[in-house]
Amino acid sequence: MHMTVETAIKAFASTVPPAVILAAGEGHRLNGVNGGMPKPLTPVLGMTLLERAILSCKEVGVLEFYVVVGYHAHILIPYLSTLEQKLSVLIKPIENPNWREGNGSSALSAAPYINRPFFLLMCDHLFDPAILGLLLAAGKNTSDCLLAVDRHPDHVFDLEDATKTRLDGDVIVSIGKNETLFDAVDTGLFLCQPSLFEALRVAGDKGLHSLSAGFAELMRSREFRAVAIGELFWFDVDTPKSLSRAKRALLQNLSKPDEDGFIAHYLNRPVSRRISELLVRTPISPNGISLMSFAIGIVGAVMFCMGEYTWTILAGLVIQLASIVDGCDGEVARLRFQSSRFGGWFDTIMDRYADTAVVAGVSFGYWLAHPHPAVWLGAIFALTGFIMASYTKKEFMIRYQSKPPGGLFGRLIKRDLRILAIMLGAIANLPYEIMLLVGFLSHVGIGWMLLKGHKQVQ
Amino acid sequence: MHMTVETAIKAFASTVPPAVILAAGEGHRLNGVNGGMPKPLTPVLGMTLLERAILSCKEVGVLEFYVVVGYHAHILIPYLSTLEQKLSVLIKPIENPNWREGNGSSALSAAPYINRPFFLLMCDHLFDPAILGLLLAAGKNTSDCLLAVDRHPDHVFDLEDATKTRLDGDVIVSIGKNETLFDAVDTGLFLCQPSLFEALRVAGDKGLHSLSAGFAELMRSREFRAVAIGELFWFDVDTPKSLSRAKRALLQNLSKPDEDGFIAHYLNRPVSRRISELLVRTPISPNGISLMSFAIGIVGAVMFCMGEYTWTILAGLVIQLASIVDGCDGEVARLRFQSSRFGGWFDTIMDRYADTAVVAGVSFGYWLAHPHPAVWLGAIFALTGFIMASYTKKEFMIRYQSKPPGGLFGRLIKRDLRILAIMLGAIANLPYEIMLLVGFLSHVGIGWMLLKGHKQVQ
Repeated sequence: MHMTVETAIKAFASTVPPAVILAAGEGHRLNGVNGGMPKPLTPVLGMTLLERAILSCKEVGVLEFYVVVGYHAHILIPYLSTLEQKLSVLIKPIENPNWREGNGSSALSAAPYINRPFFLLMCDHLFDPAILGLLLAAGKNTSDCLLAVDRHPDHVFDLEDATKTRLDGDVIVSIGKNETLFDAVDTGLFLCQPSLFEALRVAGDKGLHSLSAGFAELMRSREFRAVAIGELFWFDVDTPKSLSRAKRALLQNLSKPDEDGFIAHYLNRPVSRRISELLVRTPISPNGISLMSFAIGIVGAVMFCMGEYTWTILAGLVIQLASIVDGCDGEVARLRFQSSRFGGWFDTIMDRYADTAVVAGVSFGYWLAHPHPAVWLGAIFALTGFIMASYTKKEFMIRYQSKPPGGLFGRLIKRDLRILAIMLGAIANLPYEIMLLVGFLSHVGIGWMLLKGHKQVQ
Repeated sequence: MHMTVETAIKAFASTVPPAVILAAGEGHRLNGVNGGMPKPLTPVLGMTLLERAILSCKEVGVLEFYVVVGYHAHILIPYLSTLEQKLSVLIKPIENPNWREGNGSSALSAAPYINRPFFLLMCDHLFDPAILGLLLAAGKNTSDCLLAVDRHPDHVFDLEDATKTRLDGDVIVSIGKNETLFDAVDTGLFLCQPSLFEALRVAGDKGLHSLSAGFAELMRSREFRAVAIGELFWFDVDTPKSLSRAKRALLQNLSKPDEDGFIAHYLNRPVSRRISELLVRTPISPNGISLMSFAIGIVGAVMFCMGEYTWTILAGLVIQLASIVDGCDGEVARLRFQSSRFGGWFDTIMDRYADTAVVAGVSFGYWLAHPHPAVWLGAIFALTGFIMASYTKKEFMIRYQSKPPGGLFGRLIKRDLRILAIMLGAIANLPYEIMLLVGFLSHVGIGWMLLKGHKQVQ
């Protein structure tokens, strides 16, 4: 193991359980798409399945990993050593020569290393790390093994191939691929107790080497419980078709319905997702994407300065592109587990600067045809509205330690709509007029927020 | 008692102790200045001593008051009934016919009402409510009586007349006006146990009716401890001279050294305090003062638009006045215990709008003599710097949940300095040029903050 001393200390000092990741199978159904590479190395949006599984666990604080390998172990073991250094975590590869027997045999090969609760997961499952958080929370009040289950089987892709469970309250009473009467679907994410190993041994003695057989032993003593994941995202990648569906689902899961305005949600996100899908495979950093969006905005602003209709239309389209790309920094950051407070801060500040450039460009273009100082007073009026709409919200959050007054009005003064309006104005050859209008609405929105804040909470 | 049902419920449900306020004495030494009114009714910066004492307690959550009256009780009792309604607290007036015997006798007359810990204070002491917070915190670990003491006797006005204490660790071993060997000064703020009443009775049986005599009884069993107040503010008002010193001290205590820039601290505050001293006696609200400061700023901005040197100088002085008055809203709010989250929010937003008006005015004035669009691009450049300097800080606070990077640079991009610089620029007939320079420095400051934030904490 080639990790730093600090990583080792952090991992062993952590109160978060370690994770056992099963990556021993052949995954022959994906052979066509990954050119004969072992399944754990299948790339999904710029990252192998294995790396994504490890980083998903790291999101909830897991720093210690036991990865069971079998098929093509000679390729996977050096790869794990690279990952250990790259991700600053502790990874112990465990080779299971009997991996062909079944995944229960693979899980059992981690037994010598584990004497406390641990996460158990399959390397080919994509999931929202919040599910591990749910398992952790549920694990505080029980010493049973826990399985995260999806209680909406109708949402599950390729249900036929999925492992199903039957429940009695939250106790799992039956598990298997061929269950016909079932309440929930196995997501492949577990929080286990060391008692699982004993159950796997008992099942193995009966000649049964699947995980399900081990859990069936636990079910007898009713020591196996389900934790419902609600609407959280998970996806099992088995076939080329499920791989491409998984990518789409992962991208769709990036939206931030709480924060996004209407336009961002329905117009910008569907496009930005496709751009993010390309960008995530390049080495460009999320902050680099913020800068890229800013630079595109500046190009649009300069085009507006020309003051000619053709340039104005182009400028409108370019700033709309900038607004779309503005969503990619966060998307790529989330896809790569690189979200940072600095990134969010930097992005927001760059947005305000880009707005400033757009206002200056639009006004300059208009001034060429209408050389009157009132044009510039209008520019200052609109610009203040744009920046202050956001400023007023931020100030509210600091003073009241809560979200600013939302509602329809709150969404109307967001950047996505503002840029779209100016773009449409540009197409109608009225960018300056529309900018003034949107500026006016922003000031009205600020007044509305002040009124709301004054009434609601003193 | 004429209070609302809600007030009564809140008071009795509160875990904060009630307060006993001694307001029975004659206070003859103040007779000259308050026209024969009882001392508790002496006005200090728009509020009587008694009202200020009650509101200071309310700041830490006290809702239940026992006010002992004696001298001129017929005036004080109806006044207390008015206060009860005005301040939404519970006030029980207690008349002590033997008030002339001493303040111990007055404290003892509250005994029938109190069977749990209580604050004890003198109505003629001005103090920082944080001192009550210190007493509360210290009271959690002891069942002794606690006295807040000032360990810096050299800071105490009229030390000769003050009550002094001698300490053994934090145990008070001696107390009295004539102590010559002493470690600390009695601030007149206590957190007492009902055992005090028994001690006062014992002292009374000996013919000793002062509070000090009662506490002397507690000292014997070492049940009387001191809590040091550090640098917190307190003031004992006894004579006309101490009254005027108390006003000054109260005003000086309004500064916010953490938040204020250099100019605010050394130049604006000394002037704004004098204005606040006048405003606090008028019915104008703190938010009204924010609006007033904004209106003065707008007047200055319009004056800049004239573009003539005389107007420019005047405009510079007017915006500096606006900047000074901008400090008064918070000062008056704190003097009247009316600070609110809305007030702070509203003030900050109005400041940004006033800045916008100033930039527009200065630029318009300059444009009259230099009719070139670059003048307006400069205006947009400077304005963005001004607003974004503040915006970047606020965003940082939200993302990192901590104070933004401070230091010299942090202070240099504050509003107080910006307005002063433009004022000086106006006097030198270079307001636009100086505005550009300050705008440039603001952008540099924003870049510096981003760099700091990027390095320090990811």
